[in-house]
Amino acid sequence: MRILVVGASGTIGKEICNVLAHHDLIRAGRNGLDVSVDHTSVQSIKDMYSKVGKVDAVISAAGGANFASISELTPEINERGIESKLKGQINLVLLGLDYVNDGGSFTLTTGVMMDDPIRFGASAAMANGGVRSFVKASAIEMPRGIRINSVSPNIVQESWDRLEQYFIGFTPVPASRVALAYRKSVEGAQTGQNYEVY
Amino acid sequence: MRILVVGASGTIGKEICNVLAHHDLIRAGRNGLDVSVDHTSVQSIKDMYSKVGKVDAVISAAGGANFASISELTPEINERGIESKLKGQINLVLLGLDYVNDGGSFTLTTGVMMDDPIRFGASAAMANGGVRSFVKASAIEMPRGIRINSVSPNIVQESWDRLEQYFIGFTPVPASRVALAYRKSVEGAQTGQNYEVY
Repeated sequence: MRILVVGASGTIGKEICNVLAHHDLIRAGRNGLDVSVDHTSVQSIKDMYSKVGKVDAVISAAGGANFASISELTPEINERGIESKLKGQINLVLLGLDYVNDGGSFTLTTGVMMDDPIRFGASAAMANGGVRSFVKASAIEMPRGIRINSVSPNIVQESWDRLEQYFIGFTPVPASRVALAYRKSVEGAQTGQNYEVY
Repeated sequence: MRILVVGASGTIGKEICNVLAHHDLIRAGRNGLDVSVDHTSVQSIKDMYSKVGKVDAVISAAGGANFASISELTPEINERGIESKLKGQINLVLLGLDYVNDGGSFTLTTGVMMDDPIRFGASAAMANGGVRSFVKASAIEMPRGIRINSVSPNIVQESWDRLEQYFIGFTPVPASRVALAYRKSVEGAQTGQNYEVY
């Protein structure tokens, strides 16, 4: 399969590329190995797709949100979660639909914080929950047998030293295990799912 | 209690005001009976709160999203769901926190389409899911005993003639029954809940 991986150089993105190395991968990101994209920009996403052309699968392991306590969270601080993790990922679908071959797939990324809330995590949870519900709802309408799923990673072992203070009591999972869920989405037959890798 | 109801003149908003008529209600909306607000504008929300002052509860029954099939949904068409149903409601919380008395509450509105998807409903589902996850995550951090919940209404009987074609096979519920869930949120003690009135 020809697979576009957005966010390919991130912690999870790298493992996704490893686990899907038997496919023809196009690695995208802000400084993408194969193609550059700023997924918060509609024009940049359009440019990426017109460069890349038709693919069998689009994976998004891109998108961030700011950490802030609810008392410190402002509409402005909340914008990153809206623009990057939520709209950025959804626009990869809306603008990519015509570039995905019949029977292809989209796989987006959510995250554990929507199910198991942590301090400072409300903005990320909002974005995650929006993506999960978009995936579930859009799956029933996808044309030409195209499927869509999301993967919800727990905190990964690779980020544990940096983020342990926020995820006290969590059991981190290896990014390589998270990556398997993307493979399940791409090579399997399910649609409308949110794979929890907790 | 002193209760601010945003979206007070809508189908559900009116029933919320009926079921909470034993309280001191402030009815807000685009052409609000007591105070006008455009909840898609940060400045308008700030102006509303500075006019209204301290309250014991904020209820949002406001916010819309565009209906479009996934093949016709564009980033631009998706913006209404983002700006109105999602960010509008969340900004009512972020900008209202200092105006809610100790032990007070926020109650936002989600909707059945995130759980039971319908054609043309992906944008609304996205917004609903974002609000639900924000509520669940922010509840654990609310200061001064402030609670936050959301109500997820099914399609209401009052809108059935107009919307039946989108909700084929659904069992509509009376808006007065939906309104009871807002009362439960305001007068009860739970937090972080999404009350499904299906």
